[in-house]
Amino acid sequence: MNKINIEEKLSLFSERRSPKIVAELNGQHVKLVKLGGEFIFHKHDHEDEMFLVLKGWFNMEFEDRIVRIEEGEFIVVPRGVVHRPVAPVECSIMLFEPSTTLNTGDIQDAEFTKPVLDWI
Amino acid sequence: MNKINIEEKLSLFSERRSPKIVAELNGQHVKLVKLGGEFIFHKHDHEDEMFLVLKGWFNMEFEDRIVRIEEGEFIVVPRGVVHRPVAPVECSIMLFEPSTTLNTGDIQDAEFTKPVLDWI
Repeated sequence: MNKINIEEKLSLFSERRSPKIVAELNGQHVKLVKLGGEFIFHKHDHEDEMFLVLKGWFNMEFEDRIVRIEEGEFIVVPRGVVHRPVAPVECSIMLFEPSTTLNTGDIQDAEFTKPVLDWI
Repeated sequence: MNKINIEEKLSLFSERRSPKIVAELNGQHVKLVKLGGEFIFHKHDHEDEMFLVLKGWFNMEFEDRIVRIEEGEFIVVPRGVVHRPVAPVECSIMLFEPSTTLNTGDIQDAEFTKPVLDWI
């Protein structure tokens, strides 16, 4: 029940596209991730995902459009919707999603999939 | 599936201690609230609550201690834990909690309890 300082947690890692868990509540995880470059298109069949931009910006690409998300903005990607985040420059994100969520959803990819996440 | 700008949403209301819903995912609500003054001690028997400070700071008072939460920090209050937020000056907060969560938990109070929340 200690408070968590987001800036301090972000300073603990530099690896990109590797979400770190910082809190758990009601079966949901709060994660921090640094994006950079292109991710892969994927979807989550049973989980909605929230992306809140802490620093920088990124484009959330859908099959039919692109939404640019900037600092202080967030988007909820509903379950079943194909998406991929693309960050031309490094961008720090807070994620809210069920603790069962795999970062690449329905896609298994040797480069991108992170089946086990660290707590920081 | 539109993005949400937090600053813009905060500009839509001035009422204190009256959470507004801005998003829903996985049975959870994302809410914005402006704190000011003392709240009442209460607990939630079945819901964990997350308080993320967007602007300003507040004290989360527990039965045995006080934790000061500042901008860019958050705290998760586990179910069953008696607490009350106290904000000497106005403070803007993002809440994450199950959509079933009543703001005053196990306490019904004519002044503080908000049984129905608006979406903004």
